[in-house]
Amino acid sequence: SGTASSTDRTLNLAVIPGDGIGPEVVAQGLKVLEAVLPQDVKLETHEYDLGARRWHATGETLPDAELERLKEHDAILLGAIGDPGVPSGILERGLLLKLRFAFDHFVNLRPSRLFPNTDSPLAGRPDIDFVVVREGTEGPYVGNGGSIRTGTPQEVANEVSVNTAFGVERVVRDAYERARARTAKKLTLVHKNNVLVHAGHLWKNTFDRVGQEYPEVSTDYLHVDAATIFLVTDPARFDVIVTDNLFGDIITDLAAAVSGGIGLAASGNINPDREFPSMFEPVHGSAPDIAGSGKADPTATVLSVALLLRHLGFEAEAARIDEAVTADLAERAGTTRSTQETGDALAARVAG
Amino acid sequence: SGTASSTDRTLNLAVIPGDGIGPEVVAQGLKVLEAVLPQDVKLETHEYDLGARRWHATGETLPDAELERLKEHDAILLGAIGDPGVPSGILERGLLLKLRFAFDHFVNLRPSRLFPNTDSPLAGRPDIDFVVVREGTEGPYVGNGGSIRTGTPQEVANEVSVNTAFGVERVVRDAYERARARTAKKLTLVHKNNVLVHAGHLWKNTFDRVGQEYPEVSTDYLHVDAATIFLVTDPARFDVIVTDNLFGDIITDLAAAVSGGIGLAASGNINPDREFPSMFEPVHGSAPDIAGSGKADPTATVLSVALLLRHLGFEAEAARIDEAVTADLAERAGTTRSTQETGDALAARVAG
Ligand SMILES: CC(C)[C@H](C(=O)O)[C@@H](O)C(=O)O
Ligand SMILES: CC(C)[C@H](C(=O)O)[C@@H](O)C(=O)O
Repeated sequence: SGTASSTDRTLNLAVIPGDGIGPEVVAQGLKVLEAVLPQDVKLETHEYDLGARRWHATGETLPDAELERLKEHDAILLGAIGDPGVPSGILERGLLLKLRFAFDHFVNLRPSRLFPNTDSPLAGRPDIDFVVVREGTEGPYVGNGGSIRTGTPQEVANEVSVNTAFGVERVVRDAYERARARTAKKLTLVHKNNVLVHAGHLWKNTFDRVGQEYPEVSTDYLHVDAATIFLVTDPARFDVIVTDNLFGDIITDLAAAVSGGIGLAASGNINPDREFPSMFEPVHGSAPDIAGSGKADPTATVLSVALLLRHLGFEAEAARIDEAVTADLAERAGTTRSTQETGDALAARVAG
Repeated sequence: SGTASSTDRTLNLAVIPGDGIGPEVVAQGLKVLEAVLPQDVKLETHEYDLGARRWHATGETLPDAELERLKEHDAILLGAIGDPGVPSGILERGLLLKLRFAFDHFVNLRPSRLFPNTDSPLAGRPDIDFVVVREGTEGPYVGNGGSIRTGTPQEVANEVSVNTAFGVERVVRDAYERARARTAKKLTLVHKNNVLVHAGHLWKNTFDRVGQEYPEVSTDYLHVDAATIFLVTDPARFDVIVTDNLFGDIITDLAAAVSGGIGLAASGNINPDREFPSMFEPVHGSAPDIAGSGKADPTATVLSVALLLRHLGFEAEAARIDEAVTADLAERAGTTRSTQETGDALAARVAG
């Protein structure tokens, strides 16, 4: 096992195309990846058959042997998982979240930019360019819930949000690092510490304490409900946001909606220590309604490939993808493109 | 003690003006209430000194004796609570949430309409007219959390979301009743049942089961993250939404942002059984930055008065307020109004 970098010239990539439009957008993502990689970097891809199809066929979500094999890769590219025939929760808990937890993806990174010519309701407003650092291994996502007297009029169903000093501090620190490296150097904590007082206290205290080590970074705090308002009315106020797993889930979909739309939202499930492979995926789902029609926009997957490259140290290549997307979106406006046409256009731009 | 109705001709109202802009907007709300009430209905108001001011002076949030006295009223009108000098959580848990829990306000009702001439980013888009039925007495709001090794690197802070069949069924049923009484007759459940599987299972099962009694109502389900996207891109798809306490908190602020803005968002904390007085309040906070400047928009409070009247059976009077607000907003456009001018304009309209 190894981690790739610009000096280690093999990129050993696990690919989980998944369901619905997953395989279609992943194909374009890989096309762009191949086009952008330096000539002397060898790309090895190994495809994993995981997702709804596999579950329907075998009942398996993520067998241990496959989890072990996945560990050997430099990174994972995932398309989308799920179809309406799988009961809610099975693939989320058994595959997607299992990977995030098993590979300690404690930084769930979700950038938002207002690209040109998107049909955002905020198009034409001040620049949106922020990144959400969503905690990925704690909160109400830990699966620490249960119910008693299930199915009876006396049922009680609980869900526990677990927050540890260890888990909060490492993600808060990561967010400060990212904020310090940016131009605006501003970090906003989003929580609900007036109601979730215990978890909120831990988050806010950690945020304040770690912040003392980053005097260059200006900080503020918003309750999650207020944050949704500002995301709509004044998204330009955000630079880096750090928040818990559930709040991060909610506000990043909203952030996608007010910037380029969910078709442009990329994400990285990152293990910054590189102990385990990080996983990159578009935020959108498997969209079974348009699967196979060639209508899916692969741009979010391509942007996820840029996050992957950046994580592995290929900064210049990542930047080329970002620029290609910006340029292409400006040109695309008003035209209808197939999945493949967009992939071809982006691949041509990054190669050229 | 009694509940007012159009046959019982006294309205015995508790008023909690609160902090910041609270007293200013409440004064206008009462002005409009007096103007709209039928001549033969006697309005009695009793003011309660609760909120940040009181807490700073005495350390009290809501003494038991006051809670008992509040019970005797037909309804409560609340302005806004809080100032930056009070530690987060004290007044929320000790006063606002205490009232919601003590008076079993299990229906937290929050309508969203796109009024004319508002500066919503969605202005000019299809009509927005939906209502969120937010559960008010369960979920992560129950205060069932805690931490161990607090303040140390080994701290673990938990928050428990408690959901009961009793609590979920009554609010879901209330939402179906409201949906059936509307034109579109559509009810959307918002949850996150692919991750919060136990609570999600209880909510979804209850939603489906109770729905069998309401064949006229069409239903759908959205994950909370997806719901935030639709609230921005296609809010016209919503008619009635039912959701848990925390998700409801988040999506109603967002709903306010995409419709008229938080300055127009009204809410009712309702005990539908009328065992306890219901409480009506604007969704906005105490806005200490503009307190005393006469800039606060009292419209959300006035609309909350309409909800109060509707709850007590004064449907015609409630409708007059709604119409007055619509007409006034159309006229207001582009002008700058003081708090009092808006109150006067609305009072004149409902009286006339
Ligand atoms: C599919 C689901 C488990 C997932 C999440 O809630 O994290 C998704 O919404 C996301 O944001 O990646
Ligand atoms: C002040 C706070 C406790 C409250 C809530 O979270 O319910 C507020 O945000 C609201 O929506 O009424």
